[in-house]
Amino acid sequence: MTRHQLISRIRTTGSYLCVGLDSDLSRIPQHLKDAKDPIFEFNRQIIDATKDHCVAYKINTAFYEAEGVKGWESMERTVNYIPQTHFRIADAKRGDIGNTSTQYARAFFETLNFDAITVAPYMGEDSVRPFLEYKDKWTILLGLTSNAGAKDFELQPAANGLLYEKVLTTAAKWGSPDNLMYVIGATQADAFTRIRELTPAHFYLVPGVGAQGGSLEAISQKAMNADIGLLVNASRAVIYASNKEDFAEKARKVAAEYQAEMSGYLATVPATR
Amino acid sequence: MTRHQLISRIRTTGSYLCVGLDSDLSRIPQHLKDAKDPIFEFNRQIIDATKDHCVAYKINTAFYEAEGVKGWESMERTVNYIPQTHFRIADAKRGDIGNTSTQYARAFFETLNFDAITVAPYMGEDSVRPFLEYKDKWTILLGLTSNAGAKDFELQPAANGLLYEKVLTTAAKWGSPDNLMYVIGATQADAFTRIRELTPAHFYLVPGVGAQGGSLEAISQKAMNADIGLLVNASRAVIYASNKEDFAEKARKVAAEYQAEMSGYLATVPATR
Repeated sequence: MTRHQLISRIRTTGSYLCVGLDSDLSRIPQHLKDAKDPIFEFNRQIIDATKDHCVAYKINTAFYEAEGVKGWESMERTVNYIPQTHFRIADAKRGDIGNTSTQYARAFFETLNFDAITVAPYMGEDSVRPFLEYKDKWTILLGLTSNAGAKDFELQPAANGLLYEKVLTTAAKWGSPDNLMYVIGATQADAFTRIRELTPAHFYLVPGVGAQGGSLEAISQKAMNADIGLLVNASRAVIYASNKEDFAEKARKVAAEYQAEMSGYLATVPATR
Repeated sequence: MTRHQLISRIRTTGSYLCVGLDSDLSRIPQHLKDAKDPIFEFNRQIIDATKDHCVAYKINTAFYEAEGVKGWESMERTVNYIPQTHFRIADAKRGDIGNTSTQYARAFFETLNFDAITVAPYMGEDSVRPFLEYKDKWTILLGLTSNAGAKDFELQPAANGLLYEKVLTTAAKWGSPDNLMYVIGATQADAFTRIRELTPAHFYLVPGVGAQGGSLEAISQKAMNADIGLLVNASRAVIYASNKEDFAEKARKVAAEYQAEMSGYLATVPATR
């Protein structure tokens, strides 16, 4: 999916919501547990219920790998089920030496048909480059994350500024706003003004709204650019809105609420395209 | 596997070699490609041929994920085939917010029966902690890696010293030498003296010998401690020693050469246990 297609989709839908499929076998509704593939059945119903209210889905690979081979089957079925109109993110946090990152890129961009993958920056350029080489695919590099541990390294002083700032500005030379996004946690709203100065044109994938407590309003006001530049992810707040038979309907309701709020913020962005 | 068991095994075998199973379907010998599970068949023969000469196997998850569900089946078969006497490493470079790292820990320490997993440090303590909570399992944290990209962030100035030095000393407070190792690339031999000063008691997993050009002699001289403290990995140099029907025998020969060289270096370490 190209940047232009993504922006068009956001404007048409009135939403920059990404629904995170952190689907945990121990948390899905009881009545699904006898299904042949309970995780896929859960995801299928969540996708059917929320697809009109979001523009992206994010599959957190950890929850699938925890179930082993079966989990990878559920992941494969799920990514194939997500409509082609939607941006499909593998939240995989991969990154290794070049010949290994090449294999991860194959795994998520060829074997599985994702549009984007989250990548950890620690090992530097040659660990990120293989992902950037795919046409119309996206690398979403960790910048400033939403967890407490961000203080340990990301927020520590580097040569100029903080480590995560160095990651943003260094990686901006490896890719372009057409194939590189950053993960910026929603719990770090105060930092968004500075982050937008450093990377004016890039999209951010923003997790941490909902269960982790970030404010959609604060992020949207501080981080939106003329091309919107935001995908805001909610996982648990949407998919576990209910753990009963009405889970999909409740998920739809929460997603629709996000969409309504987002439509308001989008109305303030001039249509440049 | 405990630290004591690992050290005993190294002394008994006269080897601190880890064989890296970066098994790539496009590089395995032609005559195996009709097997039901060619990757597993390749690994099985490599393990049979090399197990007397090494103490650990490292499965690089990228090469398995590139084959999708089938690849995960090959990985599961392979880890189950590795003898219980050997240290089984998932070279997975995982790391995410706490509840997600918990799922990765389940994936590699429970669903798959690995002894250790490589973890990326960027997201800080709560992204690493879930792996450290397993008894007799190991977290192998990225410190200084063997690739060119190490210069982009790992070797950049931090508050005191370089970023990778901060990672080593900070993470040393999260775990102990009984459950935490570091990845230190063999191509960085000059840095080993300083690294050993910073983390005198920890084991290092050292990739980069062989195809990546690191010197086993230099590393062993600079980084060995009284408890040995080294696992040196060779992947391509062993498993692709031949791409013909004699591949396993050639792999055995290379592994035995490493073992012979390592035995010499081990003879210089006093038996403290």
